[in-house]
Amino acid sequence: MSKGDVLLLDCWASPFSTRVKIALEEKGVEREDREENLFGGKSELLLKSNPHQKVPVLLHDGKPICESTNIVTYIDEVWTSQPLLPTCPYERARARFWADFIDKKLFDAGGKIWRNKGDEAQEVAKKEFIEDYFGGDSFGFLDITAIALTSWFSAFETFGSFKVEEYCHKFSAWMMRCMQRETMAKVLSDPKKIYEFVLMLKKMHGIE
Amino acid sequence: MSKGDVLLLDCWASPFSTRVKIALEEKGVEREDREENLFGGKSELLLKSNPHQKVPVLLHDGKPICESTNIVTYIDEVWTSQPLLPTCPYERARARFWADFIDKKLFDAGGKIWRNKGDEAQEVAKKEFIEDYFGGDSFGFLDITAIALTSWFSAFETFGSFKVEEYCHKFSAWMMRCMQRETMAKVLSDPKKIYEFVLMLKKMHGIE
Repeated sequence: MSKGDVLLLDCWASPFSTRVKIALEEKGVEREDREENLFGGKSELLLKSNPHQKVPVLLHDGKPICESTNIVTYIDEVWTSQPLLPTCPYERARARFWADFIDKKLFDAGGKIWRNKGDEAQEVAKKEFIEDYFGGDSFGFLDITAIALTSWFSAFETFGSFKVEEYCHKFSAWMMRCMQRETMAKVLSDPKKIYEFVLMLKKMHGIE
Repeated sequence: MSKGDVLLLDCWASPFSTRVKIALEEKGVEREDREENLFGGKSELLLKSNPHQKVPVLLHDGKPICESTNIVTYIDEVWTSQPLLPTCPYERARARFWADFIDKKLFDAGGKIWRNKGDEAQEVAKKEFIEDYFGGDSFGFLDITAIALTSWFSAFETFGSFKVEEYCHKFSAWMMRCMQRETMAKVLSDPKKIYEFVLMLKKMHGIE
């Protein structure tokens, strides 16, 4: 497959875009990233490709696929080497459930919920980090869903004056384990740049 | 498979439960429905089975699966006769996207958005009702996702003083087509009872 066949409408700071990049890297699929200007003007291609008008959008042979976990599932179905989702239907359903849970509860709360012991974030950690990776012994769908969010943690920690590590050792250990993978260095956003980006967002919205 | 192996933690008025019932009926899978008292006290089984503590939960051989579209996907993967999701990865991704879109945009808006021409609900209708059913010529995943919500439409129409039919003929025609299926009569909630239920909810919340 030529590189041009896989085009990602991207924003460098988006953890949702990062998910798609990790999945493609893990599958060994080459892609072209096209940076969208989310504050200035979004491209016509983005506007017409996604009813939500958000990144990421994956264009595979020109056909758009939207929503990050949906795209990762698609990637797993099209490039079948090294499966990301479990093969057992029950485990697949669990992975989809927790991916959705992470989206609904973890990121939207902006990292704040990490500060309360016994909360939902830790509930995920307790339930899922039984083995080396989320729900198993190999890197997969849920790892991708969660690890892409961690580039934002440093900013959350700084602005919220807390450390994820203090509240969940297992989660930190899992992060370290993921970070050792070759694919991470290639695609994860730089936490320092994310911090500066959040600083800019706060100024834009008049938040001290 | 004996009936006891498939248990649905249910609420008669929940369109999300209805989705699961339709999928099981379409697959010819017997089940036991267990009504939850959502206002009084939820069962221990529900509380421990779903981190969101909501119906529906499907217990298959005692193992819980949560979130309606996730459950329908599971059902499609376990009972493979008469597939509900398309086989092509791109069409599958589209179906998942629109199911998510329906959940995020359509039902949450309580039917109000139907009243504005050119809005998102009609956008779905225009994009998808090209053929007999959502995205194709056979009843499937997206039809289940959407038709289960329609029991609430009559209440929306009454309280909102509008008719879905006036704004989208194709959608109404699709509803009629779905309603002719044998499985619908078995599981769809009675719109009159839903109307009374919504009336009760309004009183409970002090809304005239």
